[in-house]
Formats: sequence, structure tokens, C-alpha cells
Amino acid sequence: MPAAAPAALASEVEVLAFDIFGTVVDWHGSLVRELAQTWPQVDGNAFALAWRAGYRPAMARVMSGELGWTLIDDLHRTILDQILPQFGLAHLDEAARQHLNRAWHRLDPWPDAVAGLQRLKSRYLLCTLSNGNLGLLTRMAKRAGLPWDCVLSAEVFRAYKPDPSTYLGVARVFDVPPARVMLVAAHHDDLAAASACGLRTAYVERPLEFGALQIKDVSPQPGNDLHARDLLDLADQLGC
Amino acid sequence: MPAAAPAALASEVEVLAFDIFGTVVDWHGSLVRELAQTWPQVDGNAFALAWRAGYRPAMARVMSGELGWTLIDDLHRTILDQILPQFGLAHLDEAARQHLNRAWHRLDPWPDAVAGLQRLKSRYLLCTLSNGNLGLLTRMAKRAGLPWDCVLSAEVFRAYKPDPSTYLGVARVFDVPPARVMLVAAHHDDLAAASACGLRTAYVERPLEFGALQIKDVSPQPGNDLHARDLLDLADQLGC
Repeated sequence: MPAAAPAALASEVEVLAFDIFGTVVDWHGSLVRELAQTWPQVDGNAFALAWRAGYRPAMARVMSGELGWTLIDDLHRTILDQILPQFGLAHLDEAARQHLNRAWHRLDPWPDAVAGLQRLKSRYLLCTLSNGNLGLLTRMAKRAGLPWDCVLSAEVFRAYKPDPSTYLGVARVFDVPPARVMLVAAHHDDLAAASACGLRTAYVERPLEFGALQIKDVSPQPGNDLHARDLLDLADQLGC
Repeated sequence: MPAAAPAALASEVEVLAFDIFGTVVDWHGSLVRELAQTWPQVDGNAFALAWRAGYRPAMARVMSGELGWTLIDDLHRTILDQILPQFGLAHLDEAARQHLNRAWHRLDPWPDAVAGLQRLKSRYLLCTLSNGNLGLLTRMAKRAGLPWDCVLSAEVFRAYKPDPSTYLGVARVFDVPPARVMLVAAHHDDLAAASACGLRTAYVERPLEFGALQIKDVSPQPGNDLHARDLLDLADQLGC
């Protein structure tokens, strides 16, 4: 078990900014459950992974300028339309596609997330920093009870992570030096980009992010300020 | 007492967007109390009114292009520096000015606001739509316990109310037609601009917005969908 954070770090940080997909909510498990309810014949694991796999290439097309600024809801929809035929669901009508696309608004939090966030909120200002759009993040939070003080998104900064303007944007919004913001994420590349901007970083282990068939390596990597099993452990380490 | 809202209106609306200064929080009373604590010799009523009076002209300079995009925290600070000498406070040092400027982050809610919002939140998605910046609105909400689902601001749309892009921006963020958004405000001009964009409108009486020496006319005006004494009355009218 990691040592408690030095008191200096815990009191230097004022804002905790959270990655969402995979870090706070279980996108894989939630999509698998949603599919199983309606189309039990579909391989939900493969479907969830295929939908998510289209995400980075789609964002790259926006950031390269090939596509104009696009909300994640719309990127998700483009990818969905592409993969439906592969899973025998080409017949879905517009209403069914819209409803399924909003599965990303209905993702369930990891079991520790709500209680962990509530504890962290007692000491820190909590915001999202996700590539998900504001409407998606707000509806997700309302349904799941995620107690954000502020919902921030790539949509506010018109750039996706790992663009530096997103990490520095959080510091600017709250008028604090970057070192007073800590990014909390289950992805080392996200954390490394934040660290390069001067933010503090906390890695959260989510070994089941991609499902039980593809366990993720969650071993510590150098460079992060904290390494936590989950958000309750993070609250312990930050003395909340 | 106004009649209850038609059930059709209450169920058509999905998002309630709230003006903040004067509608949800008592800027005049809060500033007067803050000044009285530290500089009891200053006329707090005149100081609060002078500070607020500089607000619209300062925003107009931004919207005309004379000034680049500027956060309200910075406009407040510019106005503060201008008025301090008139009140015998020209000697305040930088730290004192920064602290006083953040009085806008420490505004108290009207007595009905938190309970009213909690009731409204059970049925509607609640967001701010204020010219105040995100950091200001977030810190205010955290201190006062205002239970927003999402903090939206002129800062997100890079335009101040009454620019149509702010009202239409709320509908766009939540991917709903403008008629499914209701602006709640204590100012008829704000509501009229929202109505022109197709939003629904609810006027809230705040007769003491400018203090007890300058009671505001809060009589109903045609054109608003609802007219409420306060946010508890609004919750009653919307069946929350």
C-alpha cells in the first residue's frame, strides 16, 4: 500500500480534475450490460471494445483539422454507425441509434467512485476534465450522483486532451498555478501530458477497464505524484 | 398568487438555467455585510451600488471589441480600482484588493434559494447562465451549497448575456430545442432576450436586489411564462 501523501502535497493542491471514462465510470461494463438487455445475441465485449477503439482516431481527425470541432456525442454516433453492420445491427432505425448512442450518458460509476468523490469534495474543489461533452458529463453525473463542483470538458477549451490547453485551462478557470491542480486518471499518457504542464498527478488502478478478458496492467510508473487503488484509497492518501 | 403552471409547460421544460447575481444570490446585501466587517466607516450601500454600476459599461466595452475577452473577475477588479479612492480606500494594497474582489465569490444566497433549487433539481436539470466566470460561480456554489448540475457561464460561450449565443448555447450544450430550456431571472431584459431566442422564461421577484433604500418594482410584465415570488414558489408552480 502506498504511503500517505506528504502533507505538503495534500495542502498544496486545491483542485482535483478527474478523467471520466475508465477512471470514474466503467464504460466497458456499462456498455456490455446495456447491450445484453436489448440484443443478447450480440458479443457485448467485442462491441464495447470496437466502439471505444474508434474514439482516438476520430479525435485525431478533429485535432488534425480534417474535421471541424466535434462533440464526443457526435463522434460516438459516427463510430456507432460504422460498427453496427459488423454486429448484425444495421437495421436499427434512427430512434434506436440515438438511444443507444446515449448509453455513454448512462455509464455506471465504479463502486468506490461516489463515496470517494464525496470524501474528496470535503477538502478539494472537484471538476471533470474529460473529452466527453458537457451535456454527456452533466447527464451522467445527475444519473449516477457524481458530486462535481464544476463540469469541465474539452468542449469548454475546444481541444481534446492531451492538448496542453485543456490541462492549463483548468488552472486558468480557477485562477491558480498549475501545481495547485491534480489530474486524477487511470491512464498514464493523460497524466504524463498533465505533468508536462506542471499539474500534479494521481494514477488510479482500473484493472477491469477493458473487461475481465483483457486485464489492464496497473503497475505503478515513475513520474506520478500518487498511485491509488481506487478513489477511496486516494481519499485516504489525501487525508480526506 | 400566480396560478400553477400548466402541466404541459412543466413537462415540456427539461433544463432550468439560472441568472445568478440578484436572482439566486444577494449581491447588494452580501457586499454591504462584507464592507461593514472591515471598513465600517464606508457607506456600504453606496459602495455596492457603485461597484455594480460599473458592470454593464465594462461588459459593453468587451462586446464592442474595445476590450478583448475579459473575465468578470477582471472587470470587477478594474471597477474596484476605479472606485476605491471615492470611498477613502485608495491605500488598500494588492492583497487587500484581491481579497475584496473575491467578495463576489462569497455572495450569500437569498434565504429561499438553496431549498428551492434542491426541490427543482429533483425534476429538472439545473445550470447557471451568468456573466460571472466559471471560477467565481464554482467557488460561490461550493461555499453556499448551490446544487448545480452544471455551471455554465458567458466564459463558455465567450459572449455576455444578452447575446443570443448564450441562451442558444444552453440549448446546444444539452442538445434540446430552445423551448425545453427555461431561463429563471429577476431581470425582465434578460428574460426578454431569452424569450426572443425561443426559451421559456420565469421571472423571480427580488424587491431588495438593490437594498432597502431602493426597492425594485417587481410587478409582473407580459411575456414571461411564469412569475414567482421566490424559488420555493417557482418549485410549487412547477410541481416539484
